Amino acid sequence: MIVLHHCTSARSFRPLWTLEELGAEYELRMLPFPPRVLAKPYLEINPLGTVPLLVDGDTRMTESAAMCQYLSARCDPGNRTGLQVRADDPAFGAWLNWLHHGEATLTFPLTIVLRYGYFERPERRLAQAADDYAKWFLSRLRGIDAVLANNEWLCAGRFTAADVSVGYALMLANDIGLCPRFPPGVARYWQRLQQRPGYLRAMAAQHAAAVAQGVSPDSSAVLKPT
Amino acid sequence: MIVLHHCTSARSFRPLWTLEELGAEYELRMLPFPPRVLAKPYLEINPLGTVPLLVDGDTRMTESAAMCQYLSARCDPGNRTGLQVRADDPAFGAWLNWLHHGEATLTFPLTIVLRYGYFERPERRLAQAADDYAKWFLSRLRGIDAVLANNEWLCAGRFTAADVSVGYALMLANDIGLCPRFPPGVARYWQRLQQRPGYLRAMAAQHAAAVAQGVSPDSSAVLKPT
Repeated sequence: MIVLHHCTSARSFRPLWTLEELGAEYELRMLPFPPRVLAKPYLEINPLGTVPLLVDGDTRMTESAAMCQYLSARCDPGNRTGLQVRADDPAFGAWLNWLHHGEATLTFPLTIVLRYGYFERPERRLAQAADDYAKWFLSRLRGIDAVLANNEWLCAGRFTAADVSVGYALMLANDIGLCPRFPPGVARYWQRLQQRPGYLRAMAAQHAAAVAQGVSPDSSAVLKPT
Repeated sequence: MIVLHHCTSARSFRPLWTLEELGAEYELRMLPFPPRVLAKPYLEINPLGTVPLLVDGDTRMTESAAMCQYLSARCDPGNRTGLQVRADDPAFGAWLNWLHHGEATLTFPLTIVLRYGYFERPERRLAQAADDYAKWFLSRLRGIDAVLANNEWLCAGRFTAADVSVGYALMLANDIGLCPRFPPGVARYWQRLQQRPGYLRAMAAQHAAAVAQGVSPDSSAVLKPT
């Protein structure tokens, strides 16, 4: 059984969304945010205290965008869902690029905004850094907007795991309040993503699991100062 | 022909190193650092002015860690070099995780150290942010050190594209001066990586191309304030 350690609306939403798109079976273990402070026993299985942690037999992963590719191959080897783009497909390079882009280029600047705009104690906040990286993030959306001018999804002419990777960055940016500054094509894409049945099932799954496991289901918990 | 746009010792060293490990043919186009300031015509083919940019027919990629996976599959479909770890291999998840980890977890903190410790004008430097993310980077090396206590390479019992991804983060950290703070297993791993013939060929290739194309071959150019 695939086990996913998750905090409401944290990066671990990527593998959760992917699992729901795949219709895969999994166990969702909810943690309060941040686990390193509020769920000390979790440090025994993940010393850094970060989510996600995905455990599948002997496989143990911590990188959410890598999980999108892993789960697509692991749970749907025949690619019935189309979430994978295979090495012999002309869109393979674009797919890999978007998978990485969602986290390495689009999510890391948001973590700077969160850290220095919300999480740090007031005397350690750095308004300049938070502002620098909000701008940095928004500048990267222009390239996505150009692609979406002629395409419903990012690559291969269909919804793939790459849309989950980039989609989560937009979800986090929306939670931070940056949505009004999305370029128009990105704003429409973000609306389409939120209408995916897999996205809606993932939102429902994290809410139900949080309630059942006695953890706050508040999706803005990630924005509360620690 | 695969074309790689590269600045000496920038992230684009990842695909360069991968190409040399593969023994692939490619064209290396050198740019002064930072291209967005010093190579304005480059903005016509890459509006953000960042490296790497890899062009292979209709495929166009900007994420260096994604290129490690792409090139391994594209140039060596039979996996003669062993740089790939396939979906049916028990190490597949670990391999994908390390590929992403090298950039998304290990390189982004170094870009904060560079920006606020070196690149920004003095009045915009933020010593706290540079120090926070140097510590953040070093804390992440502990997990790698634990893996390397029992393994020569990160996964699958051999050198793979994942070692290129993580290895470049160590190369950049070394250029910033963090090498004396590497844990012992990571320090030995960094020594092994620098002895790879593919690494040495990539170093030689960027030097020769820089000289031939009239660009500074100084590998510490990346650390100079802009």
